[in-house]
Amino acid sequence: MNTILKNDLILRTLRGETVERVPVWMMRQAGRFLPEYRELRKKYTFFERCKTPELACEITLQPVRRLGTDAAILFSDILVVPEAMGLEVQLVEKVGPILPSTIRTKEDLGKIRIPEVQEQLGYVFDAIRMIKQELAGEVPLIGFAGAPWTLLCYMVQGKGTKTFDEARRFCYTQPEAAHILLQMITDTTIAYLKAQVEAGVDLVQVFDSWAGLLGPDDFSAICLPYIRQIVEALKDEVPVIVFAKGAWHSLPLLQATGATALGVDWGLTPEFARQLTGNEVVIQGNFDPAKLYAPIPFIEKEVEKMLQGFGKDKYIANLRHGILPDTPVEHAQAFIEAIKNYSWSN
Amino acid sequence: MNTILKNDLILRTLRGETVERVPVWMMRQAGRFLPEYRELRKKYTFFERCKTPELACEITLQPVRRLGTDAAILFSDILVVPEAMGLEVQLVEKVGPILPSTIRTKEDLGKIRIPEVQEQLGYVFDAIRMIKQELAGEVPLIGFAGAPWTLLCYMVQGKGTKTFDEARRFCYTQPEAAHILLQMITDTTIAYLKAQVEAGVDLVQVFDSWAGLLGPDDFSAICLPYIRQIVEALKDEVPVIVFAKGAWHSLPLLQATGATALGVDWGLTPEFARQLTGNEVVIQGNFDPAKLYAPIPFIEKEVEKMLQGFGKDKYIANLRHGILPDTPVEHAQAFIEAIKNYSWSN
Repeated sequence: MNTILKNDLILRTLRGETVERVPVWMMRQAGRFLPEYRELRKKYTFFERCKTPELACEITLQPVRRLGTDAAILFSDILVVPEAMGLEVQLVEKVGPILPSTIRTKEDLGKIRIPEVQEQLGYVFDAIRMIKQELAGEVPLIGFAGAPWTLLCYMVQGKGTKTFDEARRFCYTQPEAAHILLQMITDTTIAYLKAQVEAGVDLVQVFDSWAGLLGPDDFSAICLPYIRQIVEALKDEVPVIVFAKGAWHSLPLLQATGATALGVDWGLTPEFARQLTGNEVVIQGNFDPAKLYAPIPFIEKEVEKMLQGFGKDKYIANLRHGILPDTPVEHAQAFIEAIKNYSWSN
Repeated sequence: MNTILKNDLILRTLRGETVERVPVWMMRQAGRFLPEYRELRKKYTFFERCKTPELACEITLQPVRRLGTDAAILFSDILVVPEAMGLEVQLVEKVGPILPSTIRTKEDLGKIRIPEVQEQLGYVFDAIRMIKQELAGEVPLIGFAGAPWTLLCYMVQGKGTKTFDEARRFCYTQPEAAHILLQMITDTTIAYLKAQVEAGVDLVQVFDSWAGLLGPDDFSAICLPYIRQIVEALKDEVPVIVFAKGAWHSLPLLQATGATALGVDWGLTPEFARQLTGNEVVIQGNFDPAKLYAPIPFIEKEVEKMLQGFGKDKYIANLRHGILPDTPVEHAQAFIEAIKNYSWSN
């Protein structure tokens, strides 16, 4: 049974209600920029932190306690899904993810399967239950997953790159195998997110971090049908935020999936984001995290510009990508405070 | 004295004339995907290839001979400019560029200077003169330089990354030093491109490869004023193509600089690119080079779609970024042929 939430601002915003102020959280807020996280990182590997519910719970709560964000986001990684599907994933500090075995042909699909999520990813749901208990209704908890195209990128390429040429090659040269893979990831992701909801998350975000590597036509063929399936499967249970980074051109199509909110990247002015979506969907974004390096008065000025651009309602303040590791904590704090304290009455 | 050009299709297109077909060249056509280039790479380091006019000339001509592109582009690298300004540049195969000494503070600006381009970059102009002689008017020769923001990225970060966080940090935290650096790069680049023109190039392209890392406001403050200076200094001498990758949002502002043509990235449909620019400027782009991995009939179909979208006039066919190293040569050939042989009378 769900506890009543003390701060449900983000949920009211996602319902399109008129709110007293803009809610705020930060991508990668549970992580590297906090000294208390770096302490844990010294003692435990990434997967130890991810797979030990007590550690995942502690890391998830750190930014809520320290900064007073309007939501907690589960500490985990999008690559737990490929791992659960049968591909080994190594998360190497300062190098990024490495998947020693990759999918390059139709035959390679034999390496993977649609897993029983409760068996393979039970540690995530254990963490969610523990976090919900610890949060005691303080703020909502966000669950998440990678979008199928973005997970395909890693499963085909085997590591992070700027352009994921091998992933694009795979889709263009072996479209049949690509679509089988995308559907397998989609089926897994739907089961995974539904189980997150069952364990207690209040909303979910789907990260299509590499959507921007595809043009509009290819986005429509490779990303959109699978995102649509995920949204349709989840949206009656919890709000669904879709962040397809770089796919600004397809915002109207993403809106048509029925997603509750759309993340926008930095290429769009607030005005153009509103124009593309007819001011009818909740928008999340899009502060440059490198601006958190700058002096606090600069941050406050830039926050004000962003808030004025997007407006008070149907808007969730966030960064344009994850907070940078060496961001001064007091600057992140200033960002959160500037959003919370903005005077909407003027 | 200039030789009369046998194939001046790209120059007529750049003048906005009605042409018989679309001209085509490929970014990084002088390079890695050609076996005859890889042979030279075994024997000479990158800077040996760059700085020996005979080698730069040979590499520049290889794709013209092999594929019949409608233009040659000088074999060189945008990082010869930071090197001429006083920063050591190492080009490490399979790793990318490394600048051991970087610009991070105003004091660091003491490490660099605006060079005498004839002294520091004479090898480029020697190569251009040799290439022009060898080309004997076959096709025009494209000169090029990196845009100031993109060069700043490398000079501050010291290596390639996905997001150039240090470069953005530098601009946001030390705007005064950043603008001094941008102006120094601009002054060098103008002198460098003017000397390329004097040595014989028929047109130039300015590559702002990392423009897409900045939002519209920051692009306007950090990129645009310097691109404008370069365009204004050059456009009365030769056509200037500006390719600000990812800065689709600022196409109208780039058009207003007076640039002869604008490169467009893959986020834009041809229709939207034309709409943003009022169909008044020449557009260059935007085929996904990973599609050159696919079977030739697929390439032909995709080329047809692109040509129909952009139309015959005021358009230069090209890739959305450099051709990939392991592209089958016959597929690159099929791309070129599909553009050349497209029947516009239907």
